[in-house]
Amino acid sequence: MRIVITGGCGFLGRRLAIRLLQEGSALGAIDDLVLFDHAAPALPLPEDRRLAVVTGDIADRAAVARVIAPGTDAVYHLAAVVSAEAETDTDLGYRVNIDGTRAVLDACRALGSRPRVVFTSSLAVYGGDLPPAAGDLTPLTPQNSYGVTKAIGELLVTDYSRKGFIDGRALRLPTVVVRPGRPNRAATTFASSIIREPLCGQDAVCPVSPDMVMAVASPRAVVNGLMHALGIPGEAFGWSRALQLPGFSVSVGEMAEAVRRAGGAAAFARIKWQPDPLVAAIVGGVPRVLKAPRAEALGFTCDSGIDEVVQNFIEDDLPLQRQLAG
Amino acid sequence: MRIVITGGCGFLGRRLAIRLLQEGSALGAIDDLVLFDHAAPALPLPEDRRLAVVTGDIADRAAVARVIAPGTDAVYHLAAVVSAEAETDTDLGYRVNIDGTRAVLDACRALGSRPRVVFTSSLAVYGGDLPPAAGDLTPLTPQNSYGVTKAIGELLVTDYSRKGFIDGRALRLPTVVVRPGRPNRAATTFASSIIREPLCGQDAVCPVSPDMVMAVASPRAVVNGLMHALGIPGEAFGWSRALQLPGFSVSVGEMAEAVRRAGGAAAFARIKWQPDPLVAAIVGGVPRVLKAPRAEALGFTCDSGIDEVVQNFIEDDLPLQRQLAG
Repeated sequence: MRIVITGGCGFLGRRLAIRLLQEGSALGAIDDLVLFDHAAPALPLPEDRRLAVVTGDIADRAAVARVIAPGTDAVYHLAAVVSAEAETDTDLGYRVNIDGTRAVLDACRALGSRPRVVFTSSLAVYGGDLPPAAGDLTPLTPQNSYGVTKAIGELLVTDYSRKGFIDGRALRLPTVVVRPGRPNRAATTFASSIIREPLCGQDAVCPVSPDMVMAVASPRAVVNGLMHALGIPGEAFGWSRALQLPGFSVSVGEMAEAVRRAGGAAAFARIKWQPDPLVAAIVGGVPRVLKAPRAEALGFTCDSGIDEVVQNFIEDDLPLQRQLAG
Repeated sequence: MRIVITGGCGFLGRRLAIRLLQEGSALGAIDDLVLFDHAAPALPLPEDRRLAVVTGDIADRAAVARVIAPGTDAVYHLAAVVSAEAETDTDLGYRVNIDGTRAVLDACRALGSRPRVVFTSSLAVYGGDLPPAAGDLTPLTPQNSYGVTKAIGELLVTDYSRKGFIDGRALRLPTVVVRPGRPNRAATTFASSIIREPLCGQDAVCPVSPDMVMAVASPRAVVNGLMHALGIPGEAFGWSRALQLPGFSVSVGEMAEAVRRAGGAAAFARIKWQPDPLVAAIVGGVPRVLKAPRAEALGFTCDSGIDEVVQNFIEDDLPLQRQLAG
C-alpha cells in the first residue's frame, strides 16, 4: 500500500503519518508513505524506511503527478492556504486551494485505478444566514475565500467520484483545538493559542469575547476521523462526497476555564483579551453548533468535552511544545 | 457604456445584443457592444456601428483581457460548454466553464472599476434528493459536471463580489424553451426541438416520456431577466449573488399538446417518442418545480404558460427558422 499525504508536514499530516506507520491504514499495511509539502518538516518525523518527504508546489501539475505516481493506492489531500491568509491573498488562496486541488485530482485520475482520496474541507463552507445547527443539508454560502475554495473542492471531489475517476470523500473538519506548534494564519488559530501558550508559560492573545461559541474537535478526534474515512465504501456517501464530521460546542470562556483547571490561575492570567473585529467576524460567521448524523451513522466520533481535549494536549503535545517554547 | 457579452453569438447572447442595441441597458445607453465567442455568428446580426464581434478562446486569459478592455462597464458571461457535452468531455467542460469563468472574472477585476457582471447559471446546480420545489435555499448537490461547474461559477461570482473585485450576479436560468436554431448538446435540447421542428414541418425525437415535468422559461422571459439583472444594486442580493429565476412547470405531454393547438395534428404527429435513458436521467434529475420568491421580489417575471411560449416562438423566430430549415 502506497499512500501520499499532501500538506504532510503540517501538524495533522504529520500526526496522521505517525498513526498510519504505527497501525497501518484501513485499506491495508503501509509499504510507502510520502509526505508532500511546500516546506521541509518543522517537527521531527519518525525514523522509518517506509517514509519519504518530497517538497514542491501543490499547483505544479508535473510535480504533483510525480508524487502521485503509478502504484499510489490512496491520497490524503490536506495541503491548503488557511483562512486569514486566503482572505488577504486571494490569488495565493485560489492557486493553492483550487488549482492545487485540481492538480491532485487530475493526478489521481491519471492513475486509472480510481484511488481513494480523502480531502479536508472546513466549517468555513458555511456562512451567511445560518440555521441554529449546521450540517450536510445546510446550503453553502461561504463568506470568505477559504470557505469558497473548500466548497469548490467538495464539488470537484464529488464530481470526480461520480465519474469514476477517483473514490473520494471530503470531510468538513470542525475547528481543530489544540493545534500544537506555532500560531498559523487561520483566523481560528487563537482557539489553540489560548490553551497551548498559557500551559507552556507564555502569554496568548484572545481576539474574541469569552461568550463566542465554537464547534471544535481535538487533533486525536480529527486524525481518528481521517483514519476511519479511508475505509468507508464510496457508495455509503450518497449524492455528495462531502461529510460534516461531528464536533462539540464550547465557548471561549469555557476554554479559558479549562486552562485554569489544568494549569491554575497563573496559566489563566496569561490569556490576554484583545478584541479583533476581523477575526471575530470570520469566527462568528461559522456555525457554533454542528449536526452530523450522517457521519455518526458512518462511525465517526468526537471528544467528550474541553477538559478531555486539554488533557490530550498535555499528554500528546506539551513536552514537545515546551521544547519549542524553550 | 461599453458592454461585453461572452458567448455573444449564441442564441441568448444574440437576442440580448439586439435588445441592448434597441433599448439601451439598465445602466445607460450603449456606445460599444462586443460579442465574444469561439465561432463566428451563425445567425444574422444587426448592422450597427456600435457592435463588434471578436472570436477567441474563453480560457485564453490574454484574449479575454483584450476584450474586457479598460472602459468596459459591464460583462454578460454566457459562454459555456452545455450539459451533455460537459458530461462526456470533462476536460473541455472544466476548461471552458471553470477556467474560462476565472479568466473573465480576473479580467473584470483587473479593470479596477468593479464592473457589473451577469453570469448565467442553471438548474443543473440542483441534484440528488430534491425537495418538491427547488430554489435559492436548496443545498446544491449537482449530479452532472455542467451543474458542478455552474455551482463553482456562482461561488466565484459571489466571492469576487464580496471582495469588491466585481459587482456580480449569477442567474439560475430555467430550461429555455423554445430555443431557435439547431439542436445543441444540452440534454434538454429536445424540449425545444419537439416544438420548433414540427412547426417547421420536420420530425423531432422526444427522448423522455410525456409525463416528464420540466421548469421552463421562454427566450423572451430569460432575456427580460438578463436585461433586468444588470440594473439591480449588488447589495440587494444579500449573502449570495446566485439567484433562482422564476420559471413555470409543464409536462412534455402538455408541450406536445400546445404544438397540436398551434400546428395541428400533422405537427403533433411529427413528434417521435424514442426514450433515451441518459437524457431522461439528466433531465429527471433537475427540479420540476421552482420557487423564486427572492427573484420575484426583485422584479423578475416569467411566462403565463406554454401556449404563450409557443406563440412567442411563432412571432419571434419561426420565419428565420423556416429559412434555416429550407
